[in-house]
Amino acid sequence: MKMIIHIFFILSLVSPISLASVLDFCVADTKGPQNPSGYSCKNPDQVTENDFAFSGLAKAGNTSNIIKAAVTAAFAPAFAGLNGLDVSLARLDLAGGGVIPLHTHPGASEVLVVIQGTIRAGFISSANKVYLKTLSRGDSMVFPQGLLHFQLNSGKGPALAFVAFGSSSPGLQILPFALFANDLPSELVEATTFLSDEEVKKLKGLLGGTN
Amino acid sequence: MKMIIHIFFILSLVSPISLASVLDFCVADTKGPQNPSGYSCKNPDQVTENDFAFSGLAKAGNTSNIIKAAVTAAFAPAFAGLNGLDVSLARLDLAGGGVIPLHTHPGASEVLVVIQGTIRAGFISSANKVYLKTLSRGDSMVFPQGLLHFQLNSGKGPALAFVAFGSSSPGLQILPFALFANDLPSELVEATTFLSDEEVKKLKGLLGGTN
Amino acid sequence: MKMIIHIFFILSLVSPISLASVLDFCVADTKGPQNPSGYSCKNPDQVTENDFAFSGLAKAGNTSNIIKAAVTAAFAPAFAGLNGLDVSLARLDLAGGGVIPLHTHPGASEVLVVIQGTIRAGFISSANKVYLKTLSRGDSMVFPQGLLHFQLNSGKGPALAFVAFGSSSPGLQILPFALFANDLPSELVEATTFLSDEEVKKLKGLLGGTN
Amino acid sequence: MKMIIHIFFILSLVSPISLASVLDFCVADTKGPQNPSGYSCKNPDQVTENDFAFSGLAKAGNTSNIIKAAVTAAFAPAFAGLNGLDVSLARLDLAGGGVIPLHTHPGASEVLVVIQGTIRAGFISSANKVYLKTLSRGDSMVFPQGLLHFQLNSGKGPALAFVAFGSSSPGLQILPFALFANDLPSELVEATTFLSDEEVKKLKGLLGGTN
Amino acid sequence: MKMIIHIFFILSLVSPISLASVLDFCVADTKGPQNPSGYSCKNPDQVTENDFAFSGLAKAGNTSNIIKAAVTAAFAPAFAGLNGLDVSLARLDLAGGGVIPLHTHPGASEVLVVIQGTIRAGFISSANKVYLKTLSRGDSMVFPQGLLHFQLNSGKGPALAFVAFGSSSPGLQILPFALFANDLPSELVEATTFLSDEEVKKLKGLLGGTN
Amino acid sequence: MKMIIHIFFILSLVSPISLASVLDFCVADTKGPQNPSGYSCKNPDQVTENDFAFSGLAKAGNTSNIIKAAVTAAFAPAFAGLNGLDVSLARLDLAGGGVIPLHTHPGASEVLVVIQGTIRAGFISSANKVYLKTLSRGDSMVFPQGLLHFQLNSGKGPALAFVAFGSSSPGLQILPFALFANDLPSELVEATTFLSDEEVKKLKGLLGGTN
Repeated sequence: MKMIIHIFFILSLVSPISLASVLDFCVADTKGPQNPSGYSCKNPDQVTENDFAFSGLAKAGNTSNIIKAAVTAAFAPAFAGLNGLDVSLARLDLAGGGVIPLHTHPGASEVLVVIQGTIRAGFISSANKVYLKTLSRGDSMVFPQGLLHFQLNSGKGPALAFVAFGSSSPGLQILPFALFANDLPSELVEATTFLSDEEVKKLKGLLGGTN
Repeated sequence: MKMIIHIFFILSLVSPISLASVLDFCVADTKGPQNPSGYSCKNPDQVTENDFAFSGLAKAGNTSNIIKAAVTAAFAPAFAGLNGLDVSLARLDLAGGGVIPLHTHPGASEVLVVIQGTIRAGFISSANKVYLKTLSRGDSMVFPQGLLHFQLNSGKGPALAFVAFGSSSPGLQILPFALFANDLPSELVEATTFLSDEEVKKLKGLLGGTN
Repeated sequence: MKMIIHIFFILSLVSPISLASVLDFCVADTKGPQNPSGYSCKNPDQVTENDFAFSGLAKAGNTSNIIKAAVTAAFAPAFAGLNGLDVSLARLDLAGGGVIPLHTHPGASEVLVVIQGTIRAGFISSANKVYLKTLSRGDSMVFPQGLLHFQLNSGKGPALAFVAFGSSSPGLQILPFALFANDLPSELVEATTFLSDEEVKKLKGLLGGTN
Repeated sequence: MKMIIHIFFILSLVSPISLASVLDFCVADTKGPQNPSGYSCKNPDQVTENDFAFSGLAKAGNTSNIIKAAVTAAFAPAFAGLNGLDVSLARLDLAGGGVIPLHTHPGASEVLVVIQGTIRAGFISSANKVYLKTLSRGDSMVFPQGLLHFQLNSGKGPALAFVAFGSSSPGLQILPFALFANDLPSELVEATTFLSDEEVKKLKGLLGGTN
Repeated sequence: MKMIIHIFFILSLVSPISLASVLDFCVADTKGPQNPSGYSCKNPDQVTENDFAFSGLAKAGNTSNIIKAAVTAAFAPAFAGLNGLDVSLARLDLAGGGVIPLHTHPGASEVLVVIQGTIRAGFISSANKVYLKTLSRGDSMVFPQGLLHFQLNSGKGPALAFVAFGSSSPGLQILPFALFANDLPSELVEATTFLSDEEVKKLKGLLGGTN
Repeated sequence: MKMIIHIFFILSLVSPISLASVLDFCVADTKGPQNPSGYSCKNPDQVTENDFAFSGLAKAGNTSNIIKAAVTAAFAPAFAGLNGLDVSLARLDLAGGGVIPLHTHPGASEVLVVIQGTIRAGFISSANKVYLKTLSRGDSMVFPQGLLHFQLNSGKGPALAFVAFGSSSPGLQILPFALFANDLPSELVEATTFLSDEEVKKLKGLLGGTN
């Protein structure tokens, strides 16, 4: 009996809850302030197993849209337990003919694994060189941080892939939306891309851009 | 004609191949020296699309073993393009009753997504608190860096999961092998774990340890 | 006289207190929110020399317990000035026969220096290889981040060591407490360690675990 | 005399050249292997003051080209002393009507200061929001890592700016060259950008792309 | 019409404003708490283009002072958009005979480019080796993190330089002010520098120090 | 028997020696090239327990010198196992009246613990504020990265302290040696410190400087 009491005395010296919880994890508390390192930490006493699990990737995204594809993200703070842990996930659903347009992740590299179907994927390096692969079920491919890349269903049926990132908040800049789905004046788009005024205005119309 | 020539002049000033390739990626060259940041970089002129793809996760691991499970890793340098990019993958195959024993990844946090079956998974915090979840297809769970965790097939059929890490070389220390599958003297195992001599010797026998 | 006034005008432009204090240090304010990078910073105007000093390591820990040893930590936030500075200390007191059980620090590597007595220390790599040394007064040893390691008094009298970490909050997961001092169900401990039901229940009894 | 000898004895213990040079700097040796952290370090005994200086930014770039602009970079390894020091520079020369097309730096954020003329600059966030400013002499602007941005001479005469990066090798992906100056098949460009076949082929022709 | 609605549905799943803004930038909100990683982030809905621009470097600093020089900084939080982005700027104005005294930046390396005049600059390594250069218009030089360095107008007219840092808050410790412009007791200054009592007291008098 | 064979098959897939050793540690091989991240890694097959231990701190440094003190460092590569692990140690021996002159560590913060005697220590912030403490046996104090600090024996007998750093190669720039023990021209020392020509020449004479 006495020995057990002593054990707990040791434990409370060595790893008090307030200390350990800082290091082990920092579950996102979206009501607190953010800093460059991420979201505020939820009080560790209120953290439960549910903060470390996420069911949002279980259901296929809705692909009834212009790209016949959907990206469903498991990033912080939606998946609160990821905050500060430098890893995250997303699922890509591509219906027949579906495509994830050219995009970048400013904050992390990405690695993809095909679960179903066939995906043609590629990225472009800073030296403007193109790296293209056709990936079958179980194949994986890496897309280095910040480089333009795409994924496209090159098979007959639907395709499914999971992608992982080395950040809990990797970001996502989709090229056609960045160019054509905002109020960046057409003349600036044209001057900085060499695209024609006709093309820019057509795509702004299609994607909801103005100016 | 003259204008196109000028364009390439600009390009060669701004992003020569030798410069850009350093930043974009550093494909592992296992014949060169390693440093704390990873493997040496393969000459970018010899890098191809195949360096960024990996087919080693396509096939289920062999689960005809004591744990009825297999871990197949896509880490650097096996997946050479991951080197230095702070992300990697592995697949977990668990036959009926299969288990990935308690283990840690000293170098990265892990996030898991269930592809098939049902998995009971958990981790233990520095405060000795246990976080346990039963995960179905499409569910994900995060295991913070360096903490003991496990995965166990809690369904009827086989289970499959992919796991991602925020490092291209996360490491893997499997507890029972670390304790019982080497020459760490039994008396030291016992003194540092409270396990009995009988138990330690039995498990050393089972797992191939000596001393 | 005029020149001196000008000097201070320059100084106030270049290094105002609110700017400099961000960079130089961030003394932990435990009443503010935490983020993945650590504790909130105390108002620099209220920081004193006492925030950078700590007397908690001056007294030997109480070793009248089951492990005949004590770990006394100088981590953030107890040692408030360490917050964000990526270094910390602890002292290990080992009475005759004392042992610091197998444990890991998920957040940092550790380096130990023996001040008094003789310590047998070791760690186990991811490849399950064991690195063991007997250390005398003044000897030092490093334990890489996240790997299982232990320290044990192998001399006749008491032993004292100081250990340093490359983080202000390195964490500490003590293996037998992680396994046996919580409510992790015995059947899960057994399935994920190969330990027998009898052994698990005995140690749960000894260390205060349930289930 | 004896005291001075003692001083040097102390010095050689404390900061031998081989030790100090690792920490202070790592001048790029392009003949040695690269690792994810950068180029190999030149032997410190052969390092001179010239390794820390660079005259390549002194001369205006040649703007007689399609964009009427030039980017001249002071990155590692051209500016060898920058290797590993997480900072670099470039100069932007923009003739009348000159433009730096939409581009990203995958490896660092950028801050610009206008030395001469008037520059209209902007970036697009992951949320597709546009941040636009017209900058005069002495004005500065920051472009967060990995986001599409541009600079354009909006004044009457030539413009000059210096830009700094938080990496010695920030990278540079210029959007129209990434899309149209390589062998990425037109059908893939079209499918992943919504651009028309006609537009893609016209720009491939202009910028030297094939397929 | 229906297609456009679908596009926005996709967009809102993939890159909601609250998610993207965390990654892209963290504009400093000086009213919120600070953490080791920097200032709290301003609500992204209230961020405007003005947060990413700074006009404080447009005007020459006042050099009518003892050093005939001025340092004007564009660091966070004054330049709020830099917070967390690991880059910043400053301008150095040196009248004839002006000098930036020996100083260090504890938090970042510095790279300088001369805009006007001639500057003699140098740094001292940990091995006490001196690296000295005379820089003309357009020349650049790097000063590794934490090392003592200086800049001095070695030409006839005024000199202007811009300097960049690999941190939004690099810090600045000016040696003569650190030694002589505070209440560090003269006897401690003398014991720790070998300077004479007479010299220390003279300079404390000149620079406003006490004790 | 068959089961045990299967276990080792699993193990060799999951944690081959060449993989695990990269992550766990990178013992310095001083014959290979260095990179910004540190020294090359020794072949893991040749790594032994001796690479992780260091006896160089066991003996007191020789204090028969001008500062009546000695700093003995356990940094990489002398302590080869520390390479890349972001922690290191040093011992300070101070005879009666001994002093460690004002110095900085450009690469890491430092934390000190007094083992014997009484030490007066202090540091100066970027805001030129002084933080001073008198430390007795067992007391600890932190010195933030890159800031000028000193330690001085303020007791009657000898003093001993151990100091730890959050880097395996923290560097050490000792102010009076940086100023007076090299060939930095006296006129530059004077112009950049406000010290008198007489004082500079006297100290150059004392400490071995020229010019």
